[in-house]
Amino acid sequence: MDGTLGKQYLKEQIKLTHPLLETCLEEEVNKAKEFGNINAKLLQKFKEISLEGKRIRAALINLAYEACGGTDIEEIQRTGIFIEIFHTGILIQDDFMDRATTRRGISAVHEIFKEEAKNLNIKTPATLYGDSMATNLGDFSFFLAWERLIQADFPFDRVRKACSLFAEAARNLVHGQVLDLTLPGLSDVKEEEILKMLWTKSGDYTALLPLKIGAILAGEKNETKLDALEKYAYSLGWAFQIQDDILGTFGEAATTGKPVGDDIKDGKNTLLILHLRKNGSPEQKEFLNYTLGNEKITKNDVEKLQKILKDSGSYDYVIKKGWSYVEEGKKHIPQITENPKLQDVLESLLIYMMARTK
Amino acid sequence: MDGTLGKQYLKEQIKLTHPLLETCLEEEVNKAKEFGNINAKLLQKFKEISLEGKRIRAALINLAYEACGGTDIEEIQRTGIFIEIFHTGILIQDDFMDRATTRRGISAVHEIFKEEAKNLNIKTPATLYGDSMATNLGDFSFFLAWERLIQADFPFDRVRKACSLFAEAARNLVHGQVLDLTLPGLSDVKEEEILKMLWTKSGDYTALLPLKIGAILAGEKNETKLDALEKYAYSLGWAFQIQDDILGTFGEAATTGKPVGDDIKDGKNTLLILHLRKNGSPEQKEFLNYTLGNEKITKNDVEKLQKILKDSGSYDYVIKKGWSYVEEGKKHIPQITENPKLQDVLESLLIYMMARTK
Repeated sequence: MDGTLGKQYLKEQIKLTHPLLETCLEEEVNKAKEFGNINAKLLQKFKEISLEGKRIRAALINLAYEACGGTDIEEIQRTGIFIEIFHTGILIQDDFMDRATTRRGISAVHEIFKEEAKNLNIKTPATLYGDSMATNLGDFSFFLAWERLIQADFPFDRVRKACSLFAEAARNLVHGQVLDLTLPGLSDVKEEEILKMLWTKSGDYTALLPLKIGAILAGEKNETKLDALEKYAYSLGWAFQIQDDILGTFGEAATTGKPVGDDIKDGKNTLLILHLRKNGSPEQKEFLNYTLGNEKITKNDVEKLQKILKDSGSYDYVIKKGWSYVEEGKKHIPQITENPKLQDVLESLLIYMMARTK
Repeated sequence: MDGTLGKQYLKEQIKLTHPLLETCLEEEVNKAKEFGNINAKLLQKFKEISLEGKRIRAALINLAYEACGGTDIEEIQRTGIFIEIFHTGILIQDDFMDRATTRRGISAVHEIFKEEAKNLNIKTPATLYGDSMATNLGDFSFFLAWERLIQADFPFDRVRKACSLFAEAARNLVHGQVLDLTLPGLSDVKEEEILKMLWTKSGDYTALLPLKIGAILAGEKNETKLDALEKYAYSLGWAFQIQDDILGTFGEAATTGKPVGDDIKDGKNTLLILHLRKNGSPEQKEFLNYTLGNEKITKNDVEKLQKILKDSGSYDYVIKKGWSYVEEGKKHIPQITENPKLQDVLESLLIYMMARTK
């Protein structure tokens, strides 16, 4: 077993949900035109970025729904895009807070509208205008995602439970984002705090939330099954986050759509950095401190830090940790579903989380 | 009839919903503590600002619910605070986009956390940190508001309809906010565009949305009644917006909680400004152009512009317009409810929208 089947599953899901997402967002672009050109341009940009997504979250909703015996595949797909809309909005706001310049190979929203401001005769500074537009577009996406989920044609108790879960995970995500921006500035950060922040910002809503929502909308009540799904989600979420950290530091710009060494320049508290901080030599740590959060570092600096991360064993440690999550997650698959085809997809997807290159 | 009864109704509603809002937000402050000090501080600030609100929107949900024969007053009040939570979040984000310094007499969130950043050893610039925290706190409030509404203990079709309406009004509000930031920079803005922006940013979600939600949650199906309620909401919303414009230019800082002449310094496209632009003398318009959006204007400049607005007839024109909405709105009250006590409240509230000093 390798990640091929999982990758294929995601690809198929993208193909199936693509027209749904496209139609939904096209409609919003048209409505935006009634307000003004700038409104339409914002929504057009949102559409472009959304359609470039990996759409793992929507696929996981679908997968859990199927694994829990759900049969209205059309409706679950129609519903599932809510989480992709929400996710794009989160990324757009995240990018302005991180001063990222590109997203999914496209200029970041706050950058595009900072430029746009220069054509307007406004007193609002261009940067503030760009940041405001990114905030507005993010907000818009939250309200759109909300409408999509509330309109899901499933029994009410399920929809209500899914909505509540979503509202709670989204609040935790905000807490994680606050920590992400704040922790680098605190002198006595504990490893648990960083792990909590990483989980809240990533695994919790990338893996646990969609898998739980899929199960809830299928009406799953079996506690053993739900428990296995949660444990699987935990492993999947961490494998995803770990590979995200690897790609953020070692990934190729051409495949990830983000600049090389982006996480380093952003000063992100990744598992790689945590390990190096604990286990690196004084010289290695000194170089880490110089590069972390330093936007002016060169390609050579990034390469040197990459080498340090390999020499110190941090890279191997994190990779190994990721694969141990894959192994741990596999154990719970038999309790989730008896369908051998779906079992294979669940296993391959877990592997693909670590095998993916973008 | 004057605005006393309406003012009293709002006061009573504040008293009744106060403990509900306080308990809900206190709970979120406690949950935030599990994440970190800064998270708790953010939520604490949110609580303080929320509890200072006029809470007109929650009161309107309650009023429409009662007028449409709803009987579970406790549940409608428990539900109604969702809109106050949402509104506070919108204001917090609005303040960072407008570079406002205070809100409801309290320092604006982005300002507080800009200062906070100076105590942190982070590379994120202090202003960006403040703006990011305001955005995060706003987002948080949206997700909390949803949860509150989805948990409303009313029949599902009603809750779903209310949620959809909310999600749509919130999206329109974002469009209005985009226009508010953009229109001052366009050379050929039409009066209709400004009116549309003002309605979307204010009357639509201050009056129409809460009144409709109250009616929906009461299960109202009578089209004549719903139509009358919509027309009343339209008048109430414009009266509210007009007095908001008056207070933003002529209000006292001590009562409004905002600096004197705030709207002028912000360069807001109010009805007052629209009228002066159309009807002022060349000298008056020249002075208007000098002051509008100019943060450096003095108290004397504000007073001079206030005098110009009175001399040009703009003040009288707008005041008259506001009162004509009051008269128009009154006409629809008999179709909304036959209960004489509620009829009186509806009428007095309409008057109070124009009579209020904050």
